[in-house]
Amino acid sequence: MHTLWDERFALRTDNIGSSAIREMLKFTSQPDVISFAGGMPAPEVFPIEKFKEACDVVLTEMGDNALQYGSTEGYQPLREMIAKNATKYGIQISADNVLITTGSQQALDLLGRIFINRGDRVLVESPTYLGALQAWNAYGVKYVTIPFDQDGMRTDLLESRLRMGIKFIYVLPNFQNPTGVTLSRERRKQLIEVADAYGVPIIEDDPYGQLRFEGEHLPPVVVLDDEMRAKEVPIYSGNVIYTSTFSKILAPGLRLAWVVAPCEVIRKLVQAKQGADLHTSTFNQYLAFEVANSQWMNSHIKIIRSTYKERRDTMLTALAKYMPEGVQWTHPKGGLFLWVTLPEGMDANIIFKSAVESKVAFVPGDSFHPLGGGENTMRLNFSNSKPEMIDEGIKRLAKVIKDNLKA
Amino acid sequence: MHTLWDERFALRTDNIGSSAIREMLKFTSQPDVISFAGGMPAPEVFPIEKFKEACDVVLTEMGDNALQYGSTEGYQPLREMIAKNATKYGIQISADNVLITTGSQQALDLLGRIFINRGDRVLVESPTYLGALQAWNAYGVKYVTIPFDQDGMRTDLLESRLRMGIKFIYVLPNFQNPTGVTLSRERRKQLIEVADAYGVPIIEDDPYGQLRFEGEHLPPVVVLDDEMRAKEVPIYSGNVIYTSTFSKILAPGLRLAWVVAPCEVIRKLVQAKQGADLHTSTFNQYLAFEVANSQWMNSHIKIIRSTYKERRDTMLTALAKYMPEGVQWTHPKGGLFLWVTLPEGMDANIIFKSAVESKVAFVPGDSFHPLGGGENTMRLNFSNSKPEMIDEGIKRLAKVIKDNLKA
Repeated sequence: MHTLWDERFALRTDNIGSSAIREMLKFTSQPDVISFAGGMPAPEVFPIEKFKEACDVVLTEMGDNALQYGSTEGYQPLREMIAKNATKYGIQISADNVLITTGSQQALDLLGRIFINRGDRVLVESPTYLGALQAWNAYGVKYVTIPFDQDGMRTDLLESRLRMGIKFIYVLPNFQNPTGVTLSRERRKQLIEVADAYGVPIIEDDPYGQLRFEGEHLPPVVVLDDEMRAKEVPIYSGNVIYTSTFSKILAPGLRLAWVVAPCEVIRKLVQAKQGADLHTSTFNQYLAFEVANSQWMNSHIKIIRSTYKERRDTMLTALAKYMPEGVQWTHPKGGLFLWVTLPEGMDANIIFKSAVESKVAFVPGDSFHPLGGGENTMRLNFSNSKPEMIDEGIKRLAKVIKDNLKA
Repeated sequence: MHTLWDERFALRTDNIGSSAIREMLKFTSQPDVISFAGGMPAPEVFPIEKFKEACDVVLTEMGDNALQYGSTEGYQPLREMIAKNATKYGIQISADNVLITTGSQQALDLLGRIFINRGDRVLVESPTYLGALQAWNAYGVKYVTIPFDQDGMRTDLLESRLRMGIKFIYVLPNFQNPTGVTLSRERRKQLIEVADAYGVPIIEDDPYGQLRFEGEHLPPVVVLDDEMRAKEVPIYSGNVIYTSTFSKILAPGLRLAWVVAPCEVIRKLVQAKQGADLHTSTFNQYLAFEVANSQWMNSHIKIIRSTYKERRDTMLTALAKYMPEGVQWTHPKGGLFLWVTLPEGMDANIIFKSAVESKVAFVPGDSFHPLGGGENTMRLNFSNSKPEMIDEGIKRLAKVIKDNLKA
């Protein structure tokens, strides 16, 4: 029904339709559906007892401040902790380079707000993270895409894209959402060099960097950028804006993430954030500091890694066991997702409908392609289901695909 | 220093300069300054023990869900509680009419996002809430202003303004920020009638409505609008969008507020919020529900009212005792602020500099005037200082004003 209100909405709202995934999740959340559709952490790894202790300490010792208004920049000890952790990776930053945001989604929104003029072109991987597309659509962005292979973004194609005039490059280098693929060290360097040559900044989104199950840790793009740059000042002043989150290492329900960037960018983000939500929950920032600022955190991350590794292994084994010939998938070395490619000509949206009837769900891959394509692809999440469910779910999904192949 | 980054920022960022108040607060936060500048609740009324109990219950009984991703619309029991409370005031709404936001600031931002096209005119009281101006500046709004007197917005001037073509009317009917003034019942009705006649929606911002110290409770504009309307459907489908917050009745550190609106508006806000921060902290929503959904809440609000009443009384008494002739102030019947008018020709920004040297702070009133003016006005907050500090602070401030009058 078209109403008077529909006539009143701003032009930009034409571009902010509801996320296909979130709408889809609504009817895959029945308890008997095995869902590989969401991107949720395993609740089994939520450190509930640790949070209880932290709530007690924070409320008893700092209740007056933890429940009060806070600064837009974020809780200073938390910013300092993040800066200190970054220093461990070999990049020199101070708390002034850190902004706390209300989840990574807000970081993406604020970055869109401060950078994107209507019609600006942004380079994204195809497929890429849907939340970024959704954040930036509201600012009237135009997307330019670059494909991936098993080593991540095809940086050999980068120059051809940057010649189109690009506002910034958006990249998820580690265990990318949705593909699970990791950008190789050589390509990270190439990305930095080409971006630098064309004067185009990079936004590095790294929610899963600490969730590597195997292989060598690769330095974040921001760290390599700092290393490769002739330094005039000790504090980072390069070409990369980095964002990460507590959602995957503590709990998404806190809505806590952060941006690391040159100080001028942080200052502008702070101005934008003042208008957006004043500041992120003080209480949650105190809690996260209390929980994350301890040796315990390292052992906790190890538990998450081993939990997710087992689930990934189970999914890879089940895929090999049940999937018909012609179906391919990525082998992520960390993170939460893997990416399935069906035989050419199959439509994952049709498979989706039969799959839901068979009580198994995933996200059709076309959603992640800002310029279309990917109809024969799908994203599978392995972090949120227990191993026995993963095996059963892949079995169901394989049956649906086989039936569809026959038909 | 102008840097490369400054060249990259989007056009809209020209309008999102840092809030004068927040910059100012930075140097008024030394412990020996008596500050009437902020808008902070009294930490003495934070229900710390109640929060401790709630943390324990939520983490023990619902930890898995409270720490997980949640829906963009908000925690369903919390939405239902808010809908039920609204029904008590005489307006029929369901949880579908409620959106949980990350503080009222986000509600204002999202409303700007869904309604304001660049160049749209919005009608605001002058002076008005700075946070609203800051939220909407980013969307390229133009302000049209309407003055106030002791009965609130001068609704007799409303038609002349609406003839200019107005996207929406923004009003704080109860104990307005910054003036402390309340819109009378007659003017509420006039506002509704004129807005309805011109087809212009109203945004009602009501953070302090429950903090009335004296006099008769006045129904929110949204409730009167519903009463005055010939109802075709039982669920509210009128012309008013209402927003309120837990910041002043529980704790601002939670960043929890809500919007009540016709369902079409809520749906559009939900789409905008998906891109802005996905959803508001699940954990904080569970906590707020646990704490607010009990009889205890009523007695807690009574404690806040009596605490703030004492502070307001102390401030009014001190103003009468210390201020020189020619200085006037409002007598708010609730809320957190009162408004001082200095003799014509005095400049509150000059007074501010001397005041800070004398270890007392306030906000110069010109900040609250989107089109300029109000140089001889100031906002005083009475909620955040203990009575003995209020007396001493007003004494210091009066001395600065007297010294300035003599000079």
